Amino acid sequence: MKKLVIFGVGLIGGSVALALKKAGVDTRIVGVCRTRYSLDEALSLGIIDEAESDLQMAVSDADMIMLAAPVAQTTKILTSIQPFLSQHTVITDAGSTKTDVIASAKAVLGDQFNQFVGGHPIAGAEKSGAAAALADLFVGKNVVITPTADTNANAITAVNDLWRNCGANVSTMSAEQHDAIFAAVSHLPHLLAFALVDDIASRPNAAQLFSFAASGFRDFTRIAGSHPEMWRDISIANKQALLNEITAYESELAMIKQLLINNDSVGLEALFERASHARNQWAKSKQ
Amino acid sequence: MKKLVIFGVGLIGGSVALALKKAGVDTRIVGVCRTRYSLDEALSLGIIDEAESDLQMAVSDADMIMLAAPVAQTTKILTSIQPFLSQHTVITDAGSTKTDVIASAKAVLGDQFNQFVGGHPIAGAEKSGAAAALADLFVGKNVVITPTADTNANAITAVNDLWRNCGANVSTMSAEQHDAIFAAVSHLPHLLAFALVDDIASRPNAAQLFSFAASGFRDFTRIAGSHPEMWRDISIANKQALLNEITAYESELAMIKQLLINNDSVGLEALFERASHARNQWAKSKQ
Repeated sequence: MKKLVIFGVGLIGGSVALALKKAGVDTRIVGVCRTRYSLDEALSLGIIDEAESDLQMAVSDADMIMLAAPVAQTTKILTSIQPFLSQHTVITDAGSTKTDVIASAKAVLGDQFNQFVGGHPIAGAEKSGAAAALADLFVGKNVVITPTADTNANAITAVNDLWRNCGANVSTMSAEQHDAIFAAVSHLPHLLAFALVDDIASRPNAAQLFSFAASGFRDFTRIAGSHPEMWRDISIANKQALLNEITAYESELAMIKQLLINNDSVGLEALFERASHARNQWAKSKQ
Repeated sequence: MKKLVIFGVGLIGGSVALALKKAGVDTRIVGVCRTRYSLDEALSLGIIDEAESDLQMAVSDADMIMLAAPVAQTTKILTSIQPFLSQHTVITDAGSTKTDVIASAKAVLGDQFNQFVGGHPIAGAEKSGAAAALADLFVGKNVVITPTADTNANAITAVNDLWRNCGANVSTMSAEQHDAIFAAVSHLPHLLAFALVDDIASRPNAAQLFSFAASGFRDFTRIAGSHPEMWRDISIANKQALLNEITAYESELAMIKQLLINNDSVGLEALFERASHARNQWAKSKQ
Protein backbone atom coordinates (compact mmCIF):
# COMPACT_ATOMS: atom_id res chain seq x y z
CA MET A 1 0.00 0.00 0.00
CA LYS A 2 1.62 3.19 -1.23
CA LYS A 3 -0.89 5.75 -0.02
CA LEU A 4 -3.36 5.72 2.87
CA VAL A 5 -5.74 8.66 3.29
CA ILE A 6 -7.25 9.18 6.74
CA PHE A 7 -10.33 11.36 7.13
CA GLY A 8 -10.33 12.62 10.72
CA VAL A 9 -6.90 12.45 12.31
CA GLY A 10 -8.04 12.21 15.92
CA LEU A 11 -7.41 9.51 18.52
CA ILE A 12 -8.37 6.59 16.24
CA GLY A 13 -7.09 7.89 12.89
CA GLY A 14 -3.90 9.20 14.46
CA SER A 15 -3.26 5.93 16.30
CA VAL A 16 -3.67 3.94 13.07
CA ALA A 17 -1.06 6.18 11.45
CA LEU A 18 1.37 5.84 14.37
CA ALA A 19 0.85 2.07 14.55
CA LEU A 20 1.65 1.61 10.85
CA LYS A 21 4.78 3.75 11.16
CA LYS A 22 5.88 1.76 14.20
CA ALA A 23 5.28 -1.50 12.29
CA GLY A 24 7.55 -0.17 9.53
CA VAL A 25 4.82 -0.27 6.89
CA ASP A 26 6.05 1.69 3.86
CA THR A 27 2.98 3.84 3.24
CA ARG A 28 2.55 7.55 2.68
CA ILE A 29 -0.10 8.70 5.13
CA VAL A 30 -2.22 11.66 4.11
CA GLY A 31 -4.57 13.39 6.51
CA VAL A 32 -7.83 15.18 5.72
CA CYS A 33 -9.71 17.00 8.49
CA ARG A 34 -12.61 19.40 8.97
CA THR A 35 -10.28 21.80 10.71
CA ARG A 36 -6.86 23.01 9.59
CA TYR A 37 -5.79 23.10 13.23
CA SER A 38 -6.10 19.33 13.66
CA LEU A 39 -4.12 18.69 10.47
CA ASP A 40 -1.32 21.04 11.49
CA GLU A 41 -1.18 19.34 14.88
CA ALA A 42 -1.03 15.87 13.28
CA LEU A 43 1.68 17.04 10.87
CA SER A 44 3.79 18.68 13.56
CA LEU A 45 3.54 15.55 15.72
CA GLY A 46 4.76 13.45 12.79
CA ILE A 47 1.57 11.41 12.75
CA ILE A 48 0.80 12.06 9.08
CA ASP A 49 3.22 12.66 6.24
CA GLU A 50 1.02 15.17 4.41
CA ALA A 51 -2.08 17.24 4.96
CA GLU A 52 -4.28 17.64 1.90
CA SER A 53 -7.21 20.00 1.53
CA ASP A 54 -7.94 19.24 -2.16
CA LEU A 55 -10.22 16.19 -2.13
CA GLN A 56 -9.43 15.07 -5.67
CA MET A 57 -5.69 15.24 -4.97
CA ALA A 58 -6.16 13.36 -1.72
CA VAL A 59 -8.40 10.61 -3.03
CA SER A 60 -7.72 9.86 -6.69
CA ASP A 61 -4.54 7.82 -6.29
CA ALA A 62 -5.20 6.44 -2.80
CA ASP A 63 -4.81 2.71 -2.16
CA MET A 64 -6.95 2.96 0.92
CA ILE A 65 -9.22 5.57 2.45
CA MET A 66 -10.12 5.30 6.12
CA LEU A 67 -13.00 7.29 7.56
CA ALA A 68 -12.16 8.01 11.20
CA ALA A 69 -14.29 11.14 11.61
CA PRO A 70 -17.51 11.14 13.71
CA VAL A 71 -19.96 8.55 12.28
CA ALA A 72 -22.60 11.19 11.55
CA GLN A 73 -20.25 12.60 8.87
CA THR A 74 -19.98 9.28 6.99
CA THR A 75 -22.52 9.98 4.25
CA LYS A 76 -21.21 13.50 3.71
CA ILE A 77 -17.60 12.34 3.37
CA LEU A 78 -18.49 9.40 1.12
CA THR A 79 -20.55 11.70 -1.10
CA SER A 80 -17.68 14.20 -1.34
CA ILE A 81 -15.07 11.60 -2.32
CA GLN A 82 -17.22 9.40 -4.58
CA PRO A 83 -16.58 11.38 -7.81
CA PHE A 84 -12.80 10.94 -7.43
CA LEU A 85 -12.61 7.26 -6.41
CA SER A 86 -10.45 4.95 -8.52
CA GLN A 87 -11.53 1.37 -9.13
CA HIS A 88 -8.66 -0.01 -7.04
CA THR A 89 -9.15 2.11 -3.90
CA VAL A 90 -10.32 0.30 -0.77
CA ILE A 91 -12.56 2.33 1.53
CA THR A 92 -13.05 1.47 5.20
CA ASP A 93 -14.21 3.14 8.39
CA ALA A 94 -13.78 2.97 12.16
CA GLY A 95 -17.27 3.76 13.39
CA SER A 96 -18.99 2.23 16.43
CA THR A 97 -22.10 1.19 14.49
CA LYS A 98 -22.10 -0.71 11.24
CA THR A 99 -25.59 -1.28 9.77
CA ASP A 100 -26.05 2.45 9.17
CA VAL A 101 -22.56 2.84 7.72
CA ILE A 102 -23.03 -0.10 5.33
CA ALA A 103 -26.40 1.30 4.20
CA SER A 104 -24.83 4.71 3.61
CA ALA A 105 -21.89 3.23 1.68
CA LYS A 106 -24.24 1.15 -0.45
CA ALA A 107 -26.43 4.16 -1.26
CA VAL A 108 -23.57 6.56 -2.00
CA LEU A 109 -20.97 4.33 -3.63
CA GLY A 110 -23.31 2.41 -5.96
CA ASP A 111 -21.19 0.21 -8.25
CA GLN A 112 -18.16 0.84 -6.05
CA PHE A 113 -19.82 -0.46 -2.87
CA ASN A 114 -17.79 -3.67 -3.37
CA GLN A 115 -14.67 -1.60 -2.53
CA PHE A 116 -16.03 -0.72 0.95
CA VAL A 117 -15.30 -2.73 4.11
CA GLY A 118 -16.92 -1.60 7.38
CA GLY A 119 -14.69 -1.75 10.45
CA HIS A 120 -14.84 -1.07 14.18
CA PRO A 121 -11.75 -1.07 16.40
CA ILE A 122 -12.74 -1.86 20.01
CA ALA A 123 -10.29 0.51 21.61
CA GLY A 124 -10.42 3.97 23.03
CA ALA A 125 -8.92 6.24 25.61
CA GLU A 126 -10.06 8.96 27.99
CA LYS A 127 -8.68 11.70 25.78
CA SER A 128 -9.47 12.48 22.16
CA GLY A 129 -7.67 14.28 19.35
CA ALA A 130 -4.44 13.65 17.46
CA ALA A 131 -2.32 14.59 20.48
CA ALA A 132 -3.82 11.61 22.34
CA ALA A 133 -2.96 9.12 19.57
CA LEU A 134 -0.87 6.10 20.56
CA ALA A 135 1.06 3.65 18.38
CA ASP A 136 0.00 0.82 20.73
CA LEU A 137 -3.69 1.69 21.03
CA PHE A 138 -4.83 -1.39 19.08
CA VAL A 139 -2.28 -3.94 20.27
CA GLY A 140 -4.16 -7.05 21.44
CA LYS A 141 -7.51 -5.33 20.93
CA ASN A 142 -10.44 -6.62 18.87
CA VAL A 143 -11.34 -5.11 15.53
CA VAL A 144 -14.57 -6.21 13.86
CA ILE A 145 -14.89 -5.97 10.09
CA THR A 146 -18.26 -6.37 8.38
CA PRO A 147 -17.87 -7.23 4.69
CA THR A 148 -21.00 -8.14 2.73
CA ALA A 149 -21.57 -10.75 0.01
CA ASP A 150 -20.74 -8.00 -2.51
CA THR A 151 -17.37 -7.04 -1.04
CA ASN A 152 -14.21 -7.65 -3.11
CA ALA A 153 -11.91 -10.28 -1.57
CA ASN A 154 -8.83 -8.07 -2.06
CA ALA A 155 -10.54 -5.22 -0.17
CA ILE A 156 -11.24 -7.55 2.77
CA THR A 157 -7.62 -8.74 2.74
CA ALA A 158 -6.29 -5.18 2.66
CA VAL A 159 -8.37 -4.08 5.65
CA ASN A 160 -7.46 -7.25 7.54
CA ASP A 161 -3.77 -6.55 6.88
CA LEU A 162 -4.11 -2.94 7.99
CA TRP A 163 -5.48 -3.88 11.39
CA ARG A 164 -3.09 -6.82 11.87
CA ASN A 165 -0.24 -4.39 11.21
CA CYS A 166 -1.67 -2.28 14.05
CA GLY A 167 -1.43 -5.33 16.34
CA ALA A 168 -5.17 -6.01 16.54
CA ASN A 169 -7.15 -9.28 16.43
CA VAL A 170 -9.58 -9.10 13.52
CA SER A 171 -13.04 -10.74 13.64
CA THR A 172 -15.44 -10.88 10.72
CA MET A 173 -19.23 -10.79 11.06
CA SER A 174 -22.30 -9.17 9.52
CA ALA A 175 -23.12 -5.56 10.31
CA GLU A 176 -26.36 -6.71 11.96
CA GLN A 177 -24.55 -9.16 14.21
CA HIS A 178 -21.99 -6.49 15.10
CA ASP A 179 -24.68 -4.00 16.05
CA ALA A 180 -26.58 -6.57 18.15
CA ILE A 181 -23.43 -7.51 20.08
CA PHE A 182 -22.36 -3.94 20.76
CA ALA A 183 -25.87 -2.87 21.69
CA ALA A 184 -25.58 -5.40 24.54
CA VAL A 185 -22.00 -4.95 25.77
CA SER A 186 -21.39 -1.28 25.02
CA HIS A 187 -24.35 0.84 23.94
CA LEU A 188 -26.74 -0.38 26.66
CA PRO A 189 -24.22 0.10 29.51
CA HIS A 190 -23.53 3.65 28.30
CA LEU A 191 -27.22 4.41 28.22
CA LEU A 192 -27.72 2.89 31.70
CA ALA A 193 -24.90 5.00 33.11
CA PHE A 194 -26.25 8.20 31.52
CA ALA A 195 -29.67 7.27 32.95
CA LEU A 196 -28.39 6.84 36.50
CA VAL A 197 -26.50 10.14 36.56
CA ASP A 198 -29.40 12.03 34.97
CA ASP A 199 -31.83 10.44 37.46
CA ILE A 200 -29.68 11.57 40.40
CA ALA A 201 -28.72 14.97 38.95
CA SER A 202 -32.39 15.86 38.51
CA ARG A 203 -33.25 15.42 42.23
CA PRO A 204 -33.70 18.41 44.56
CA ASN A 205 -31.01 16.88 46.84
CA ALA A 206 -28.60 16.06 44.00
CA ALA A 207 -25.66 17.87 45.65
CA GLN A 208 -26.10 15.86 48.84
CA LEU A 209 -26.42 12.59 46.92
CA PHE A 210 -23.28 13.28 44.88
CA SER A 211 -21.36 14.20 48.03
CA PHE A 212 -21.80 10.66 49.36
CA ALA A 213 -21.11 8.87 46.07
CA ALA A 214 -17.88 6.87 46.26
CA SER A 215 -15.67 4.55 44.23
CA GLY A 216 -18.42 2.13 43.12
CA PHE A 217 -20.40 5.04 41.71
CA ARG A 218 -17.25 6.46 40.13
CA ASP A 219 -16.50 3.34 38.11
CA PHE A 220 -20.13 2.57 37.25
CA THR A 221 -20.65 6.09 35.88
CA ARG A 222 -17.29 6.64 34.18
CA ILE A 223 -18.87 6.04 30.76
CA ALA A 224 -21.60 8.59 31.58
CA GLY A 225 -18.84 11.18 31.11
CA SER A 226 -18.62 10.20 27.43
CA HIS A 227 -19.23 12.53 24.50
CA PRO A 228 -22.99 13.38 24.29
CA GLU A 229 -23.00 14.01 20.51
CA MET A 230 -21.21 10.76 19.75
CA TRP A 231 -23.58 8.74 21.93
CA ARG A 232 -26.62 10.47 20.48
CA ASP A 233 -25.43 9.35 17.03
CA ILE A 234 -24.66 5.80 18.16
CA SER A 235 -28.03 5.48 19.91
CA ILE A 236 -29.98 6.68 16.90
CA ALA A 237 -27.86 4.67 14.44
CA ASN A 238 -28.34 1.46 16.41
CA LYS A 239 -31.87 2.24 17.54
CA GLN A 240 -33.57 -1.12 16.97
CA ALA A 241 -30.87 -3.30 18.56
CA LEU A 242 -30.64 -0.86 21.47
CA LEU A 243 -34.41 -0.88 21.99
CA ASN A 244 -34.29 -4.70 22.08
CA GLU A 245 -31.57 -4.50 24.75
CA ILE A 246 -33.46 -1.93 26.82
CA THR A 247 -36.53 -4.18 26.75
CA ALA A 248 -34.51 -7.23 27.85
CA TYR A 249 -32.91 -5.19 30.63
CA GLU A 250 -36.29 -3.88 31.80
CA SER A 251 -37.41 -7.51 32.17
CA GLU A 252 -34.29 -8.38 34.16
CA LEU A 253 -34.83 -5.37 36.43
CA ALA A 254 -38.51 -6.23 36.89
CA MET A 255 -37.47 -9.75 37.92
CA ILE A 256 -35.03 -8.42 40.52
CA LYS A 257 -37.66 -5.98 41.78
CA GLN A 258 -40.07 -8.88 42.25
CA LEU A 259 -37.47 -10.93 44.15
CA LEU A 260 -37.04 -7.95 46.46
CA ILE A 261 -40.80 -7.42 46.90
CA ASN A 262 -41.10 -11.13 47.77
CA ASN A 263 -38.19 -10.91 50.27
CA ASP A 264 -36.72 -13.76 48.23
CA SER A 265 -33.21 -13.63 49.64
CA VAL A 266 -32.35 -17.05 48.21
CA GLY A 267 -33.32 -15.92 44.71
CA LEU A 268 -31.50 -12.61 45.09
CA GLU A 269 -28.32 -14.25 46.34
CA ALA A 270 -28.45 -16.80 43.49
CA LEU A 271 -28.76 -14.00 40.93
CA PHE A 272 -25.94 -11.94 42.52
CA GLU A 273 -23.83 -15.10 42.67
CA ARG A 274 -24.38 -15.85 38.96
CA ALA A 275 -23.53 -12.26 38.04
CA SER A 276 -20.46 -11.93 40.25
CA HIS A 277 -19.13 -15.31 39.11
CA ALA A 278 -19.62 -14.39 35.44
CA ARG A 279 -18.09 -10.96 35.95
CA ASN A 280 -15.05 -12.24 37.80
CA GLN A 281 -14.48 -15.05 35.27
CA TRP A 282 -14.67 -12.48 32.47
CA ALA A 283 -12.18 -10.19 34.22
CA LYS A 284 -9.77 -13.11 34.65
CA SER A 285 -10.07 -14.05 30.98
CA LYS A 286 -9.15 -10.50 29.99
CA GLN A 287 -5.98 -10.37 32.09
CA MET B 1 -10.64 5.38 75.76
CA LYS B 2 -8.76 2.55 77.47
CA LYS B 3 -10.31 -0.44 75.74
CA LEU B 4 -11.90 -0.86 72.31
CA VAL B 5 -13.42 -4.21 71.37
CA ILE B 6 -13.85 -4.93 67.68
CA PHE B 7 -16.19 -7.71 66.57
CA GLY B 8 -15.01 -8.85 63.15
CA VAL B 9 -11.39 -7.92 62.51
CA GLY B 10 -11.59 -7.83 58.70
CA LEU B 11 -10.87 -5.01 56.27
CA ILE B 12 -12.96 -2.41 58.13
CA GLY B 13 -12.36 -3.49 61.73
CA GLY B 14 -8.68 -4.07 61.06
CA SER B 15 -8.27 -0.70 59.37
CA VAL B 16 -9.89 1.08 62.32
CA ALA B 17 -7.38 -0.62 64.63
CA LEU B 18 -4.41 0.29 62.43
CA ALA B 19 -5.62 3.87 62.00
CA LEU B 20 -5.93 4.39 65.77
CA LYS B 21 -2.45 2.96 66.33
CA LYS B 22 -1.03 5.21 63.62
CA ALA B 23 -2.76 8.22 65.22
CA GLY B 24 -1.06 7.33 68.50
CA VAL B 25 -4.34 6.80 70.37
CA ASP B 26 -3.58 5.06 73.66
CA THR B 27 -6.18 2.31 73.53
CA ARG B 28 -5.99 -1.43 74.08
CA ILE B 29 -7.62 -3.04 71.05
CA VAL B 30 -9.28 -6.39 71.58
CA GLY B 31 -10.51 -8.50 68.70
CA VAL B 32 -13.42 -10.94 68.69
CA CYS B 33 -14.12 -13.06 65.58
CA ARG B 34 -16.22 -15.99 64.45
CA THR B 35 -13.08 -17.82 63.46
CA ARG B 36 -9.90 -18.30 65.46
CA TYR B 37 -7.93 -18.10 62.21
CA SER B 38 -8.88 -14.46 61.61
CA LEU B 39 -7.98 -13.50 65.16
CA ASP B 40 -4.58 -15.19 64.96
CA GLU B 41 -3.92 -13.42 61.69
CA ALA B 42 -4.91 -10.03 63.16
CA LEU B 43 -2.73 -10.69 66.23
CA SER B 44 0.30 -11.79 64.23
CA LEU B 45 -0.01 -8.73 61.99
CA GLY B 46 -0.05 -6.49 65.08
CA ILE B 47 -3.50 -5.16 64.21
CA ILE B 48 -5.05 -6.05 67.58
CA ASP B 49 -3.38 -6.19 70.97
CA GLU B 50 -5.43 -9.13 72.23
CA ALA B 51 -7.77 -11.80 70.98
CA GLU B 52 -10.57 -12.70 73.36
CA SER B 53 -12.94 -15.64 73.04
CA ASP B 54 -14.74 -15.12 76.38
CA LEU B 55 -17.51 -12.62 75.67
CA GLN B 56 -17.91 -11.44 79.26
CA MET B 57 -14.17 -10.82 79.57
CA ALA B 58 -14.16 -9.00 76.25
CA VAL B 59 -17.17 -6.81 76.86
CA SER B 60 -17.64 -6.04 80.55
CA ASP B 61 -14.94 -3.37 80.93
CA ALA B 62 -14.95 -2.06 77.33
CA ASP B 63 -15.18 1.68 76.71
CA MET B 64 -16.34 1.07 73.18
CA ILE B 65 -17.56 -1.91 71.19
CA MET B 66 -17.51 -1.74 67.41
CA LEU B 67 -19.44 -4.26 65.33
CA ALA B 68 -17.56 -4.71 62.06
CA ALA B 69 -18.83 -8.20 61.21
CA PRO B 70 -21.33 -8.79 58.35
CA VAL B 71 -24.53 -6.81 59.02
CA ALA B 72 -26.67 -9.96 59.11
CA GLN B 73 -24.88 -10.92 62.37
CA THR B 74 -25.77 -7.66 64.14
CA THR B 75 -28.74 -8.94 66.14
CA LYS B 76 -26.91 -12.11 67.13
CA ILE B 77 -23.84 -10.25 68.35
CA LEU B 78 -25.86 -7.60 70.21
CA THR B 79 -27.92 -10.34 71.90
CA SER B 80 -24.76 -12.18 72.94
CA ILE B 81 -23.08 -9.14 74.49
CA GLN B 82 -26.14 -7.48 76.02
CA PRO B 83 -25.98 -9.36 79.37
CA PHE B 84 -22.40 -8.14 79.98
CA LEU B 85 -22.72 -4.49 78.94
CA SER B 86 -21.69 -1.83 81.46
CA GLN B 87 -23.59 1.45 81.68
CA HIS B 88 -20.64 3.43 80.34
CA THR B 89 -19.86 1.32 77.26
CA VAL B 90 -20.52 2.94 73.86
CA ILE B 91 -21.61 0.54 71.12
CA THR B 92 -21.29 1.38 67.45
CA ASP B 93 -21.22 -0.44 64.09
CA ALA B 94 -19.88 -0.09 60.56
CA GLY B 95 -22.69 -1.55 58.48
CA SER B 96 -23.84 -0.32 55.06
CA THR B 97 -27.50 0.00 56.11
CA LYS B 98 -28.74 1.78 59.19
CA THR B 99 -32.52 1.58 59.68
CA ASP B 100 -32.35 -2.17 60.26
CA VAL B 101 -29.33 -1.87 62.57
CA ILE B 102 -31.01 0.83 64.66
CA ALA B 103 -34.19 -1.25 64.92
CA SER B 104 -32.16 -4.26 66.02
CA ALA B 105 -30.19 -2.25 68.59
CA LYS B 106 -33.39 -0.76 69.98
CA ALA B 107 -35.04 -4.17 70.27
CA VAL B 108 -32.05 -5.95 71.81
CA LEU B 109 -30.47 -3.27 74.01
CA GLY B 110 -33.69 -1.89 75.55
CA ASP B 111 -32.72 0.61 78.27
CA GLN B 112 -29.17 0.67 76.95
CA PHE B 113 -30.18 1.68 73.42
CA ASN B 114 -29.05 5.21 74.32
CA GLN B 115 -25.48 3.86 74.37
CA PHE B 116 -25.67 2.80 70.70
CA VAL B 117 -24.57 4.98 67.76
CA GLY B 118 -25.01 3.62 64.22
CA GLY B 119 -22.15 4.32 61.84
CA HIS B 120 -21.19 3.71 58.21
CA PRO B 121 -17.69 4.39 56.86
CA ILE B 122 -17.85 5.04 53.09
CA ALA B 123 -14.64 3.28 52.26
CA GLY B 124 -13.68 -0.08 50.95
CA ALA B 125 -11.13 -1.94 48.93
CA GLU B 126 -11.04 -4.78 46.41
CA LYS B 127 -9.74 -7.23 49.00
CA SER B 128 -11.26 -8.24 52.30
CA GLY B 129 -9.92 -9.71 55.54
CA ALA B 130 -7.49 -8.48 58.19
CA ALA B 131 -4.51 -8.87 55.84
CA ALA B 132 -6.06 -6.22 53.56
CA ALA B 133 -6.48 -3.69 56.40
CA LEU B 134 -4.87 -0.27 55.88
CA ALA B 135 -4.11 2.48 58.40
CA ASP B 136 -5.07 5.08 55.78
CA LEU B 137 -8.30 3.47 54.55
CA PHE B 138 -10.52 6.19 56.05
CA VAL B 139 -8.33 9.26 55.48
CA GLY B 140 -10.43 11.94 53.78
CA LYS B 141 -13.38 9.54 53.45
CA ASN B 142 -16.94 10.14 54.65
CA VAL B 143 -18.34 8.41 57.69
CA VAL B 144 -22.05 8.79 58.43
CA ILE B 145 -23.28 8.38 61.98
CA THR B 146 -26.99 8.04 62.76
CA PRO B 147 -27.75 8.87 66.39
CA THR B 148 -31.40 9.08 67.45
CA ALA B 149 -33.17 11.45 69.84
CA ASP B 150 -32.48 8.88 72.58
CA THR B 151 -28.72 8.65 72.07
CA ASN B 152 -26.41 9.86 74.86
CA ALA B 153 -24.39 12.94 73.91
CA ASN B 154 -21.16 11.39 75.24
CA ALA B 155 -21.69 8.30 73.05
CA ILE B 156 -22.06 10.52 69.97
CA THR B 157 -18.89 12.42 70.90
CA ALA B 158 -16.94 9.21 71.43
CA VAL B 159 -17.89 7.77 68.02
CA ASN B 160 -17.19 11.11 66.34
CA ASP B 161 -13.74 11.16 67.96
CA LEU B 162 -13.03 7.60 66.91
CA TRP B 163 -13.62 8.32 63.24
CA ARG B 164 -11.86 11.68 63.31
CA ASN B 165 -8.84 9.90 64.75
CA CYS B 166 -9.03 7.61 61.71
CA GLY B 167 -8.82 10.70 59.47
CA ALA B 168 -12.44 10.59 58.28
CA ASN B 169 -15.02 13.37 57.78
CA VAL B 170 -18.02 12.63 59.96
CA SER B 171 -21.59 13.51 58.90
CA THR B 172 -24.66 13.09 61.08
CA MET B 173 -28.13 12.22 59.79
CA SER B 174 -31.09 9.97 60.54
CA ALA B 175 -30.91 6.29 59.66
CA GLU B 176 -33.78 6.77 57.20
CA GLN B 177 -31.98 9.60 55.42
CA HIS B 178 -28.80 7.56 55.29
CA ASP B 179 -30.58 4.59 53.77
CA ALA B 180 -32.36 6.74 51.16
CA ILE B 181 -29.08 8.37 50.08
CA PHE B 182 -27.15 5.11 49.81
CA ALA B 183 -30.01 3.38 48.03
CA ALA B 184 -29.53 5.98 45.28
CA VAL B 185 -25.74 6.31 45.03
CA SER B 186 -24.60 2.83 46.01
CA HIS B 187 -27.24 0.11 46.36
CA LEU B 188 -29.06 0.88 43.09
CA PRO B 189 -25.83 1.01 40.99
CA HIS B 190 -24.76 -2.35 42.45
CA LEU B 191 -28.12 -3.86 41.58
CA LEU B 192 -28.02 -2.38 38.05
CA ALA B 193 -24.55 -3.82 37.46
CA PHE B 194 -25.57 -7.27 38.76
CA ALA B 195 -28.63 -7.04 36.46
CA LEU B 196 -26.59 -6.25 33.34
CA VAL B 197 -24.13 -9.08 33.87
CA ASP B 198 -26.89 -11.57 34.71
CA ASP B 199 -28.85 -10.45 31.64
CA ILE B 200 -25.84 -11.04 29.37
CA ALA B 201 -24.61 -14.21 31.11
CA SER B 202 -28.01 -15.86 30.62
CA ARG B 203 -27.94 -15.48 26.80
CA PRO B 204 -27.16 -18.43 24.50
CA ASN B 205 -24.34 -16.33 22.95
CA ALA B 206 -22.96 -15.10 26.30
CA ALA B 207 -19.39 -16.22 25.50
CA GLN B 208 -19.39 -14.25 22.26
CA LEU B 209 -20.86 -11.17 23.95
CA PHE B 210 -18.29 -11.26 26.76
CA SER B 211 -15.47 -11.67 24.23
CA PHE B 212 -16.28 -8.26 22.73
CA ALA B 213 -16.85 -6.46 26.03
CA ALA B 214 -14.15 -3.85 26.63
CA SER B 215 -13.06 -1.18 29.11
CA GLY B 216 -16.45 0.58 29.40
CA PHE B 217 -18.08 -2.71 30.33
CA ARG B 218 -15.21 -3.50 32.70
CA ASP B 219 -15.67 -0.35 34.77
CA PHE B 220 -19.47 -0.37 34.64
CA THR B 221 -19.60 -3.95 35.93
CA ARG B 222 -16.75 -3.84 38.45
CA ILE B 223 -19.25 -3.67 41.33
CA ALA B 224 -21.09 -6.71 39.89
CA GLY B 225 -18.08 -8.69 41.13
CA SER B 226 -19.02 -7.77 44.72
CA HIS B 227 -19.86 -10.25 47.45
CA PRO B 228 -23.29 -11.85 46.73
CA GLU B 229 -24.15 -12.57 50.39
CA MET B 230 -23.31 -9.04 51.49
CA TRP B 231 -25.40 -7.51 48.71
CA ARG B 232 -28.30 -9.87 49.40
CA ASP B 233 -28.29 -8.61 53.01
CA ILE B 234 -28.00 -4.95 52.02
CA SER B 235 -30.80 -5.28 49.44
CA ILE B 236 -33.18 -6.94 51.89
CA ALA B 237 -32.21 -4.61 54.75
CA ASN B 238 -32.82 -1.51 52.63
CA LYS B 239 -35.70 -2.96 50.65
CA GLN B 240 -38.13 -0.05 50.66
CA ALA B 241 -35.64 2.68 49.75
CA LEU B 242 -34.15 0.42 47.07
CA LEU B 243 -37.59 -0.31 45.60
CA ASN B 244 -38.23 3.44 45.43
CA GLU B 245 -34.95 3.88 43.56
CA ILE B 246 -35.67 1.04 41.14
CA THR B 247 -39.05 2.59 40.36
CA ALA B 248 -37.48 6.02 39.73
CA TYR B 249 -34.84 4.42 37.53
CA GLU B 250 -37.46 2.49 35.57
CA SER B 251 -39.16 5.83 34.81
CA GLU B 252 -35.88 7.35 33.67
CA LEU B 253 -35.20 4.37 31.42
CA ALA B 254 -38.73 4.47 30.00
CA MET B 255 -38.20 8.16 29.20
CA ILE B 256 -34.96 7.43 27.34
CA LYS B 257 -36.62 4.55 25.50
CA GLN B 258 -39.37 6.89 24.37
CA LEU B 259 -36.84 9.49 23.15
CA LEU B 260 -35.23 6.73 21.10
CA ILE B 261 -38.56 5.45 19.71
CA ASN B 262 -39.37 9.03 18.70
CA ASN B 263 -35.93 9.49 17.04
CA ASP B 264 -35.66 12.54 19.32
CA SER B 265 -31.96 13.18 18.88
CA VAL B 266 -32.22 16.66 20.39
CA GLY B 267 -33.82 15.24 23.54
CA LEU B 268 -31.31 12.38 23.74
CA GLU B 269 -28.32 14.67 23.32
CA ALA B 270 -29.69 17.05 25.96
CA LEU B 271 -30.07 14.19 28.41
CA PHE B 272 -26.58 12.79 27.68
CA GLU B 273 -25.21 16.32 27.98
CA ARG B 274 -26.85 16.84 31.40
CA ALA B 275 -25.52 13.49 32.59
CA SER B 276 -21.98 13.86 31.27
CA HIS B 277 -21.73 17.41 32.61
CA ALA B 278 -22.94 16.30 36.06
CA ARG B 279 -20.66 13.27 36.05
CA ASN B 280 -17.56 15.21 35.02
CA GLN B 281 -18.28 17.99 37.54
CA TRP B 282 -18.64 15.36 40.25
CA ALA B 283 -15.36 13.69 39.27
CA LYS B 284 -13.58 17.06 39.40
CA SER B 285 -15.02 17.82 42.83
CA LYS B 286 -13.66 14.50 44.14
CA GLN B 287 -10.11 15.10 42.95
